[in-house]
Amino acid sequence: MNSAPAQSFEANRERFMSELSEFLAFKSISTDPAFAEDCARCADWLRKHLQKIGFKAEVIATEGRPLVYAERAGRAGSPVVLYYGHYDVQPVDPLDLWRSDPFRAELRDGRLYARGAQDNKGQTFYVLKALETLIADKSLTNTVKIILEGEEESGSPSIKVKLAELRNKLAADVLMVCDTGTVDANFSAITMGLRGIASFEFRLQGPKYDLHSGVHGGMVRNPAIEMARLLATLHENDGRIAIAGYYDGVPEIDPADRALCNAMPLKLEDYEAQIGAPAAGGELRFTPLERRGFRPTVEVNGLVSGYTGAGGKTIIPSHATAKISLRTVAGQDPARCMQLAIDHLRSRTPIGLRFELVASGVGGAALRLSSKLPLVQRAKSVLDRVTPAGTIFIWEGASIPIVADLAEAAGAEPLIVGFGLEEDSIHAPNESFAIEQFRKGYVYVSELLADLGKS
Amino acid sequence: MNSAPAQSFEANRERFMSELSEFLAFKSISTDPAFAEDCARCADWLRKHLQKIGFKAEVIATEGRPLVYAERAGRAGSPVVLYYGHYDVQPVDPLDLWRSDPFRAELRDGRLYARGAQDNKGQTFYVLKALETLIADKSLTNTVKIILEGEEESGSPSIKVKLAELRNKLAADVLMVCDTGTVDANFSAITMGLRGIASFEFRLQGPKYDLHSGVHGGMVRNPAIEMARLLATLHENDGRIAIAGYYDGVPEIDPADRALCNAMPLKLEDYEAQIGAPAAGGELRFTPLERRGFRPTVEVNGLVSGYTGAGGKTIIPSHATAKISLRTVAGQDPARCMQLAIDHLRSRTPIGLRFELVASGVGGAALRLSSKLPLVQRAKSVLDRVTPAGTIFIWEGASIPIVADLAEAAGAEPLIVGFGLEEDSIHAPNESFAIEQFRKGYVYVSELLADLGKS
Repeated sequence: MNSAPAQSFEANRERFMSELSEFLAFKSISTDPAFAEDCARCADWLRKHLQKIGFKAEVIATEGRPLVYAERAGRAGSPVVLYYGHYDVQPVDPLDLWRSDPFRAELRDGRLYARGAQDNKGQTFYVLKALETLIADKSLTNTVKIILEGEEESGSPSIKVKLAELRNKLAADVLMVCDTGTVDANFSAITMGLRGIASFEFRLQGPKYDLHSGVHGGMVRNPAIEMARLLATLHENDGRIAIAGYYDGVPEIDPADRALCNAMPLKLEDYEAQIGAPAAGGELRFTPLERRGFRPTVEVNGLVSGYTGAGGKTIIPSHATAKISLRTVAGQDPARCMQLAIDHLRSRTPIGLRFELVASGVGGAALRLSSKLPLVQRAKSVLDRVTPAGTIFIWEGASIPIVADLAEAAGAEPLIVGFGLEEDSIHAPNESFAIEQFRKGYVYVSELLADLGKS
Repeated sequence: MNSAPAQSFEANRERFMSELSEFLAFKSISTDPAFAEDCARCADWLRKHLQKIGFKAEVIATEGRPLVYAERAGRAGSPVVLYYGHYDVQPVDPLDLWRSDPFRAELRDGRLYARGAQDNKGQTFYVLKALETLIADKSLTNTVKIILEGEEESGSPSIKVKLAELRNKLAADVLMVCDTGTVDANFSAITMGLRGIASFEFRLQGPKYDLHSGVHGGMVRNPAIEMARLLATLHENDGRIAIAGYYDGVPEIDPADRALCNAMPLKLEDYEAQIGAPAAGGELRFTPLERRGFRPTVEVNGLVSGYTGAGGKTIIPSHATAKISLRTVAGQDPARCMQLAIDHLRSRTPIGLRFELVASGVGGAALRLSSKLPLVQRAKSVLDRVTPAGTIFIWEGASIPIVADLAEAAGAEPLIVGFGLEEDSIHAPNESFAIEQFRKGYVYVSELLADLGKS
């Protein structure tokens, strides 16, 4: 590939990496309040950097880490593009497993090693550098808006609160997100769906204290057994979720999307060897990839009752606790699904036990795109040039809670493309990003905006 | 009551309490190896004491704490009586909750306070003192054997191993045990049944490590959910145990025994207020007291899977573990019942998970007497004189694992009577025994042996 963007990347590679290293030096860990000042300094650095490359930029204070907002007006009538990214990073422990300082980027074998090198500082930076070049070349015709948050690794609480207030500022046609990856460097990937999430914890309370299982066995209900019997009502034998009304609104799978989803280059044998278990969960009438991409789940994340130390203890436990998380798909309201699940469990709690809701929270709604959307097709054309082997479509099982809310607030169509790879070890020691994948991202953003500028 | 035994008790009360205090001063805690020497000294003190009151006595070494065996030949043809008791005691922590030194007996308000004051040194001592008086009065005509162990509070491992070897020595017609209690001081109580016990722990192993519940949810089976579904197959909706063959050998309840069991002076309202839960467990077609006394159980004592700390963690746990204990009734072999339960669970483990047995052990078989047995009726006549309000029959839910094995080895009919009360706080700080209950025990043993001597 020897396009103009590819050439401009080669001409500027060293400067780009040096600037990115500056960005990576901020210890912008959002989950630990000790780094609040580092986050503020990082946000300010971004504001200045965005101003330098041609944007009007500001730092917006929130209840937590600040937002950075930037805007550059383009030609009236052409699509307004909003880019969302985050400047906060995961904690770095265990520090002794890092081969180099996580906040002092080091280039080794074509990869830049640092916390955030990929997630999401690295991927955000190829967006900024592509925009810089387009602006310098006077070839950026779209209005471009940028919103960068500092709490993505903490569940995005502050930006969520601000969305209503920022509605006009964020209004756009396209919401670009570059916070994902592909399964194989030969292919580009468009993320076509994210699941929504909600979770809760409940407790079944039986006797006031643990009872002797001989003296009381047969007299009273055993909370551990009743918890098991209750959780067993959540699913049918064929894996379907047995909560009444849970599937309301879940759309049929488009046949073309279904084919694309199943065409993902993932060998089940490899997957099963990796995790050490067969892909035998979920609803049996769907393939594993369909189940992950298009179907909701109800999972038990934690379960505890009675004596769990070494050896035995002949007791009837006084209570049992379960932590549940739900993944929802487009068409489902996660808050409603959670309420249905809670009601299902509460109403089936047998006499002799008390149902107590310990905690509950809704993370965000799901998102689903169709491969038929013109925006998706345009992105695919661009990406097919970036990676001549082609472009795959990924209906993700995981959640990026803020994306659906942000798309809704901005009135924009989301476009989620990223160049991360499994070997980048995001969230883990020795996070890195391949320069080659950075280059692809740079070319993708350059060409996509050139393409969108034509309309 | 002004019988000869009652009079002899009054005449000797102070000496009895003083000697019992000597017995209670030994720190014969069997669960802690630090007290092995105290146990040995206690056994030797018992040997000498038994010799002094007229028995041939010896200490029998075992792999653990020693046994004390004593024998005194009586008239040929009259029933041979074997008394079983234990000289070991429970640990004393938390020590700061004791009002007086647990190994320095203190008399307060008609109660002797010390570790072991009731369980089982105190109850054993009224047996020895009654025998002493009978021997001194030349009115003991039965052959009497005594076996005292030092590991009852540790599950009786060493005596179990020795039983085959001691078979001839222990051969008897009646096995007397005084290690139980009554529910109300106005009534005497005969323990008519003990349940057997077996327990095991198993693990369902799924993926090699905890998985992200979004990325993998719907792809793989969730071990926490599958554990719940598996445990839910152990019981029917009406509380019946759903393991095939589990009830084989369980006898029908004799109508007279059923009536006696239900006549126990226990108010369900009081019981429920005490434990804070209704007596709504077990098989619905039996009353709570019948379920405890005559029916087997399968209980989950402990259950754990996934994340159990504060807050949430969106994972699919890699495994789940359950600890199970079974109580069996007469007619059931606990080892067979345990195997049936394990097979039931193993055979229902779904693909995608591995069943792993972590531990298993059989405690001992159950025991059940009938109220129609002549020995029981003779004991009842004696007890009705000791407590004029009458005698109740208790089919216990708990287990004293060694009793059934001992009765079998000795070829003896068990007779389990004790004068303990709930307020004695056995196994807890400030254990005590009412002198009045000690006196009743002394009278009971004296009169029973006089009665047995007639046959």
